[in-house]
Order: sequence, then C-alpha cells, then structure tokens
Amino acid sequence: MVFVQIREAKEGDCGHIMRLIRELAEFEKLSDQVKIREEDLRADGFGENPFYHCLVAESLPGPGESQGPCVVGYGLYYFIYSTWKGRNVYLEDIYVKPEYQGQGIGSKIIKKVAEVALDKGCSQFRLSVLDWNKRAMDLYKALGAQDLTEAEGWHSFRFEGEVMRKLAGK
Amino acid sequence: MVFVQIREAKEGDCGHIMRLIRELAEFEKLSDQVKIREEDLRADGFGENPFYHCLVAESLPGPGESQGPCVVGYGLYYFIYSTWKGRNVYLEDIYVKPEYQGQGIGSKIIKKVAEVALDKGCSQFRLSVLDWNKRAMDLYKALGAQDLTEAEGWHSFRFEGEVMRKLAGK
Repeated sequence: MVFVQIREAKEGDCGHIMRLIRELAEFEKLSDQVKIREEDLRADGFGENPFYHCLVAESLPGPGESQGPCVVGYGLYYFIYSTWKGRNVYLEDIYVKPEYQGQGIGSKIIKKVAEVALDKGCSQFRLSVLDWNKRAMDLYKALGAQDLTEAEGWHSFRFEGEVMRKLAGK
Repeated sequence: MVFVQIREAKEGDCGHIMRLIRELAEFEKLSDQVKIREEDLRADGFGENPFYHCLVAESLPGPGESQGPCVVGYGLYYFIYSTWKGRNVYLEDIYVKPEYQGQGIGSKIIKKVAEVALDKGCSQFRLSVLDWNKRAMDLYKALGAQDLTEAEGWHSFRFEGEVMRKLAGK
C-alpha cells in the first residue's frame, strides 16, 4: 500500500492533470470531446481569477525508493450558485489511475472537496456520473450522495457549437 | 401580445427575482428546498466578484397603459469550467410566469444566454430539467439542445448537509 497525500494543484502539475483528463475521457468513451490543452489549464486555473480549482492525489515514495512523488489522481472543481442554497461547489472531474484504485484515494479526494466546500460556506456539492460507471455510483452512494436524476428526475442538457451560434444569431 | 425585452438584472430587481425563484421551485414541487433570501441574492450577485449573473424578461406597457414595466421571467447563469472545452456557461434557472408563457419569452432568454456565452468565448452552455417537465424539454430540444442524460447516461449527484459535514470530519 502506497502513501498518498491530497494537496492543492500547482501550476507545474498541469502536464500531469492534462494526461489524467485524457485518461478519464478515454475511460468515459468520450475522448474525442477533449479540446483543451495544457496551456489552457495553466492560464485558466492559475491566473488572478481562476476559472477552476484542482486537488491532486500524489503518491509518496516509500523509504529507500528511488522514484519521486507521482500524481496519480485529481479532483477538479469550481464554485457554482444555487438559487435555493446559495454558493456551492461542483466537482467537475474526479479520477484515480486504475493501478491506484481500490485504496480509498477517490474517497480521500471527495472528503477534501467536502472540507473545502464547508470552509467556503457551501452547504452542498454536486457532481455528474455516467450511469454505466457502477463502481463510481456505488462509491458516491456509499459516501452518502443522492442520485438526483433517479430521485427527482433531473436531466442534463447541453447547447453547443453551431446550434449555439445560430441561437445567438452569429 | 405584450412587448418583452430581455436585459441584465440590476440590484433593484432582486425582490422580483426572489419571488420568481419561489414560483419556479413551487412549480418544480421542490419549494421546501429554497433557503436563500433577497439579501443573499443582492450580496452574491452584485458585489465585486459576483457568484452569478442574471437576465430578466421585462414586459413593457403598451401605449396608454398606466402600469409600469414588470419583471415576468428570468434566466440565472454563471460560468463553469469543462475539462474538455474550457470555460462554459451554466443556466441554473430559467422561468417565465405562467400567464406570459407561450409567447417565445423563454426562447428569447435562451438566445440571450447563447449570445453572452459566445461573447465570453464559451463553446457551449448546459442546463438541467426535470423529466416530467415535458414542455421545457421539448422547447430545449426544438432549439437544438442535446439531452445528455438520455444520450450518454449522465446522472446528477449531490452531497449535502449532515453527510457533507461527516465527510469533512466536522
């Protein structure tokens, strides 16, 4: 069992995070949708008004090991606004590399997000998961999350690309 | 047919917006979940770093009418971050008072959101809708939105209250 710490991402982590974003999208079978690059992650997350925040899970070398610390997972979140509850957190992505799964790293990331959310005065945090990703769904439910699509019938909709330009008359 | 303009909300609109938020939550059969107050809307949307932005639909009096302009709908949105596409818009709420529905006001709000999103360099915008709200679903689909829950299987999850405090160890 490796020792893993959860810490705030630094700009220098963006290369690792970008690789993990691509891995997650591949796992979700939606990797053709990834259009951003490492430069975007750097500019968008580490400027004066960052568009997102990120936690990384870093495995630390054991005594006598020659390999340095290694980013093995991440949780990327931002603040949203609920007209029912006020300021809240949305966990856009959470991912742990397959060879590090099953060691409680995902739960550690979620706990850290809950901590950040509470510290910032948020009463809840939301996330989305694909219905065939049973392992993730089971984890979130075991940790106490409610499936709002199942319980209340919420569906996610998206406008994009050409459709959006037509709507905007552009 | 009344003439309706879509404009950015001002702080003085918060009382109207709060009433419409309550109406929408009642329609969604979830009004017990509304915890924020007009003061929160003022503080959160009109400070230096607003947590949300809001459009209002305002009906304008016809010639000879004594009643002044009246807020009959709203669209409340904020910026989110997609690890696939970068900066994006999320339309948290969209609502038009029942007696003003069927006149294209909802579409006007959506078009304005698309315009704002494009102006800010966003390539998409997302929203959520309850599965029994067929009228809204049909409108979004007619305008070109994709139902991601149906198409890809996305489910919304939420952690809140006591569960979140336990997770955070507080």
